[in-house]
Amino acid sequence: MHSDNPHGVKAILFDTFGTIVDWRGSLIGELSAWGQARGLGVDWTGLVNAWRGAYAPSMDRVRRGELPWTILDDLHRATLEKLVVRFGAIGLSEADLDFINRGWHRLRPWPDAVPGLTRLKTRYIIGPLSNGNVALLVNMAKSAGLPWDMVCSTELFRHYKPDPETYLGACRLLGLAPGQVMMAAAHNGDLRAARALGLKTCFFARPTEYGPHQSRDFAAAEAWDVIADDVLDVAARMGT
Amino acid sequence: MHSDNPHGVKAILFDTFGTIVDWRGSLIGELSAWGQARGLGVDWTGLVNAWRGAYAPSMDRVRRGELPWTILDDLHRATLEKLVVRFGAIGLSEADLDFINRGWHRLRPWPDAVPGLTRLKTRYIIGPLSNGNVALLVNMAKSAGLPWDMVCSTELFRHYKPDPETYLGACRLLGLAPGQVMMAAAHNGDLRAARALGLKTCFFARPTEYGPHQSRDFAAAEAWDVIADDVLDVAARMGT
Repeated sequence: MHSDNPHGVKAILFDTFGTIVDWRGSLIGELSAWGQARGLGVDWTGLVNAWRGAYAPSMDRVRRGELPWTILDDLHRATLEKLVVRFGAIGLSEADLDFINRGWHRLRPWPDAVPGLTRLKTRYIIGPLSNGNVALLVNMAKSAGLPWDMVCSTELFRHYKPDPETYLGACRLLGLAPGQVMMAAAHNGDLRAARALGLKTCFFARPTEYGPHQSRDFAAAEAWDVIADDVLDVAARMGT
Repeated sequence: MHSDNPHGVKAILFDTFGTIVDWRGSLIGELSAWGQARGLGVDWTGLVNAWRGAYAPSMDRVRRGELPWTILDDLHRATLEKLVVRFGAIGLSEADLDFINRGWHRLRPWPDAVPGLTRLKTRYIIGPLSNGNVALLVNMAKSAGLPWDMVCSTELFRHYKPDPETYLGACRLLGLAPGQVMMAAAHNGDLRAARALGLKTCFFARPTEYGPHQSRDFAAAEAWDVIADDVLDVAARMGT
């Protein structure tokens, strides 16, 4: 490892949901308090689990061409409208639904994320490479204090990860070769797609991302270029 | 003016070359020192003036469809290759040409820009809306310390300003109506295009942008929503 520029990397792009922010804890916490204040007897934990459960299948419909390009806010909203019926959340206004849907814009970071990113920013270009749309990611960064240098959403490429257009599109926008860009994620599948295209890879586990339903990604499944404990440990291993 | 949210604005997008960074002073200063160290007897001031002189015409060739979409780094490079011949800068290597061309990535901010943006960032989403390509703008932000929340380049829309696709594309990515977005520029023409599409507008003059060759934009040509002295004064007028 070169002390000046480990792995020849100039930019580090982070998966966001689960990797940088605790979507499940944030949404369950916020919606439970919100629902209780309104006297709604809704199983918000179940609703949030089901909401995220529809995430990959809804993007896959876009990826297979069954749906035209649709930003994540709109995929989330379509799922939410079904789930409020199924979970008996009745009497919600348009403003309520919009507030709930924009909970994804207000997700809280894992405790190591902001201090770790702040250190990495001193030497590297840092940004998300997330399936969240640009507005979602910009609002999340403002709300959570994420010190991104730029916001790279798969919306810019009208493709969802793990389509190659997303990883290669990010490298092209940055004017960098894939080997100068490191993808960092708590999900082995994301890194597998990035590595196949020549990007460097960085893994750290988020074993509580799915709460009691976590079934994978407890550890690195391959010899990724960097395997760390969390973002602060990435910062240390990348010389910052 | 509402003290909480003047003009109903949620995001402020800034023109960059001339408005935020002093392209002319930066390039002439850097290239003169660089050329002197190499004993090159080149009129760098003349070269920089001519380089910028080719800026609008080269983008217009793209805007009219005479050239396919070409990022600004590549337009700059094509112009530079002609100008080094014309100005007698001989014996330059590929690395030299790349260094000179990437001078646009290293432009210095006007003194009020970073402190003003830092204040505006506390209440608004701030970003560039610039004809610079993403890599140029990201590298410039790192080098100059510009605290953008996101980097919006016209490259994302494969159109150059003042094409409507650029202003409206930025609003769409931010999930905001045009009236919630303010375009800030030291160029009346940029604001005229933005206002025609419903964006709010903010002007401050940069009367030394073109040095002795400045011929316009000494003052606001219309009653823009905000007319300020500089970015710090914008921050004050926008309640930050």
